Amino acid sequence: MMPPIVTLTTDYGLKDNYVATLKGILLSRIEQVRIVDVSHLIRPQDIMEGAFVLQHTYPFFPKNSLHIAVIDPGVGSNRRAIAIYHNGHYFIGPDNGLFALILGTDTPEFAVNLDKPEFWLHPNPDATFHGRDIFTPVAAALLAGKSLQEVGTPITTIKPLRWVEPTVDKDGIQGWVVHVDTFGNCVTNIKRTHFEQFSVVKNLKCYAGASIVKEISTHYQQAPPGDVMALYGSHGFLEIAVNGGNAAHILGIDKHSPVDIYINKQVIKRAMFMGKED
Amino acid sequence: MMPPIVTLTTDYGLKDNYVATLKGILLSRIEQVRIVDVSHLIRPQDIMEGAFVLQHTYPFFPKNSLHIAVIDPGVGSNRRAIAIYHNGHYFIGPDNGLFALILGTDTPEFAVNLDKPEFWLHPNPDATFHGRDIFTPVAAALLAGKSLQEVGTPITTIKPLRWVEPTVDKDGIQGWVVHVDTFGNCVTNIKRTHFEQFSVVKNLKCYAGASIVKEISTHYQQAPPGDVMALYGSHGFLEIAVNGGNAAHILGIDKHSPVDIYINKQVIKRAMFMGKED
Amino acid sequence: MMPPIVTLTTDYGLKDNYVATLKGILLSRIEQVRIVDVSHLIRPQDIMEGAFVLQHTYPFFPKNSLHIAVIDPGVGSNRRAIAIYHNGHYFIGPDNGLFALILGTDTPEFAVNLDKPEFWLHPNPDATFHGRDIFTPVAAALLAGKSLQEVGTPITTIKPLRWVEPTVDKDGIQGWVVHVDTFGNCVTNIKRTHFEQFSVVKNLKCYAGASIVKEISTHYQQAPPGDVMALYGSHGFLEIAVNGGNAAHILGIDKHSPVDIYINKQVIKRAMFMGKED
Repeated sequence: MMPPIVTLTTDYGLKDNYVATLKGILLSRIEQVRIVDVSHLIRPQDIMEGAFVLQHTYPFFPKNSLHIAVIDPGVGSNRRAIAIYHNGHYFIGPDNGLFALILGTDTPEFAVNLDKPEFWLHPNPDATFHGRDIFTPVAAALLAGKSLQEVGTPITTIKPLRWVEPTVDKDGIQGWVVHVDTFGNCVTNIKRTHFEQFSVVKNLKCYAGASIVKEISTHYQQAPPGDVMALYGSHGFLEIAVNGGNAAHILGIDKHSPVDIYINKQVIKRAMFMGKED
Repeated sequence: MMPPIVTLTTDYGLKDNYVATLKGILLSRIEQVRIVDVSHLIRPQDIMEGAFVLQHTYPFFPKNSLHIAVIDPGVGSNRRAIAIYHNGHYFIGPDNGLFALILGTDTPEFAVNLDKPEFWLHPNPDATFHGRDIFTPVAAALLAGKSLQEVGTPITTIKPLRWVEPTVDKDGIQGWVVHVDTFGNCVTNIKRTHFEQFSVVKNLKCYAGASIVKEISTHYQQAPPGDVMALYGSHGFLEIAVNGGNAAHILGIDKHSPVDIYINKQVIKRAMFMGKED
Repeated sequence: MMPPIVTLTTDYGLKDNYVATLKGILLSRIEQVRIVDVSHLIRPQDIMEGAFVLQHTYPFFPKNSLHIAVIDPGVGSNRRAIAIYHNGHYFIGPDNGLFALILGTDTPEFAVNLDKPEFWLHPNPDATFHGRDIFTPVAAALLAGKSLQEVGTPITTIKPLRWVEPTVDKDGIQGWVVHVDTFGNCVTNIKRTHFEQFSVVKNLKCYAGASIVKEISTHYQQAPPGDVMALYGSHGFLEIAVNGGNAAHILGIDKHSPVDIYINKQVIKRAMFMGKED
């Protein structure tokens, strides 16, 4: 039998004892566990960033992998701790919208409220480190053969949170930056399918920060070094990038910045507000 | 038999060849070794930070785990290289006070001076990378079945270094920040037990940077977003935090900053120097 | 049989889904694979830094290890994807000079052009993430028993790129900083052998940034705290360092900065341009 796989996605950073403590607990209880770090550099308390990263990672792992995800600004408050089975994978963490974003639903196939202290590290968990005191010990219990029903009480819905979709009208598509990656590439929420309702796509103008991009490129080096470009990136979304540079820094944009695409339109009203026209 | 576990705690950073070189040596010599990174982002040469992190991590690992810890400003000087058995765990690294801080004693159960070059990578180690040339090859020898007595010469004491305890007097408790974590939470050296000699605790005032906190909270979200707070954190110490923010940045405090707690006192003399009174 | 070892060297950073996606693919296809991170903090698109780091790491891994290295500014362009066998190790990544630098040759023992889409994640790879779509699936195919000839078409040369050697003349040695490590130590391309053609070495003066160093030290603490020094570091090259400090920051030097060594010379003409003389 294949040794169990656990992935970790947190905002714990890589300096402290937090991440290795979870690994120590897992290794102490499940001899053959294989632990994979997804990311520990999620911006502190940024549920959206954590969800984006794990959402695009977990499908590449084997079925029955268990994903511990802890971006948990409400640790110690009355937010629930939950475990989920969905799409053939297990998920454990705080019920704060993180998993609704990851799974794209607030009614996963099966979910439980982790309300049984006998599976925690100790019955009175610290109010600041549920990764250590609740989530990881429960994960170990599941890996040791306990069922979801044994470690918690079934619930039908989890806390809802949704990715905001772009607005599409006759003039074009209005989207936003939903993730800025390590390279400074700005991933938007705009997909190829958003273009499909336009029978003809001409005079494309994509506004991001102070830049206007007039075509969609195929790869980074298609643009001259230093030029701003738009292309479909590896997450399946339109991405604003700079060949050889950091688009977020160069354009001064960040998560939540608007990216507006005008299509088949000669007069661009919003351009007056957004930047230079040429 | 469970495969051996080795943890690594260093200030090597994550960019260079340093960490992976240690792993290559271990994997080349011990087929089944399982390697866990505790931290490689310890501030350069900061023995205290490395000790704090490993001290709070190693007890969560299985007994007989081996912990390589290298924060080693004196590499290549005449400081000793040592290996230790204590509390059911093995430790290897430089004898510069790091392990006395981790273990809370300078007389561990058993320790050896690593003075037998036949167990090193080669008999003339570089003066700059004993992690590669001494500590890790010796760790591999131990994992391969050598005893501490075989790889070194017994010693009875290691270089002493101690955590400074807070001062407690009739007016309150004077402590310090001993660790600033990834979130900017400022962990002090003040424990619940320091409050026990006060029969009544009222009029509490906790001074940290320019802030005065008047109660001890139970969890981060108990304070309004952005507010400074004090609470017992996951390390068991009083922590200065900001709900949703970075306390160290906001308060301008860092490791070694004083945190003074006045108890049952109406007139606060020190307040004139430390910050605003209200 | 020993489980296969794969190392990863990229500029993907540690925040995003990129690194864990590669690991998920490997673990999904090769049950027993052992994955070791060499570095994911290579400066974006910095082929030279990635080569330096992997060049000094891979020899410490067991023979037949497979090294995936992706610093790939030309991803999606017509640069080739290649796999190599050399020195008992396997290498996979983009053919952009990276591997010629790592191996010190553009004619490795055996190399193939990865032109067989049946071994990729899908036949039409994204233009931005060949680590996921080509390199890692091919690596998994090799680990599963395919030969290099099966996954690609043999080629005799790879894209050449060479480390520039120092210039040595009767007055001394002119080299450059080729790597700045986590500590700020500036590793040059100057080796002990470059000194060998000088029958006598006296009046040594080593210029780096605004500093002049007059001797070669043996270890970091040989210099007083804060002093600039030169010593042979763990990579085998002369290194400019500051005891307890960050030489790159203090001296304002970086990769490509010149480091000039004058030997047996009384009058230093260049000193007028390089800094203070004493």
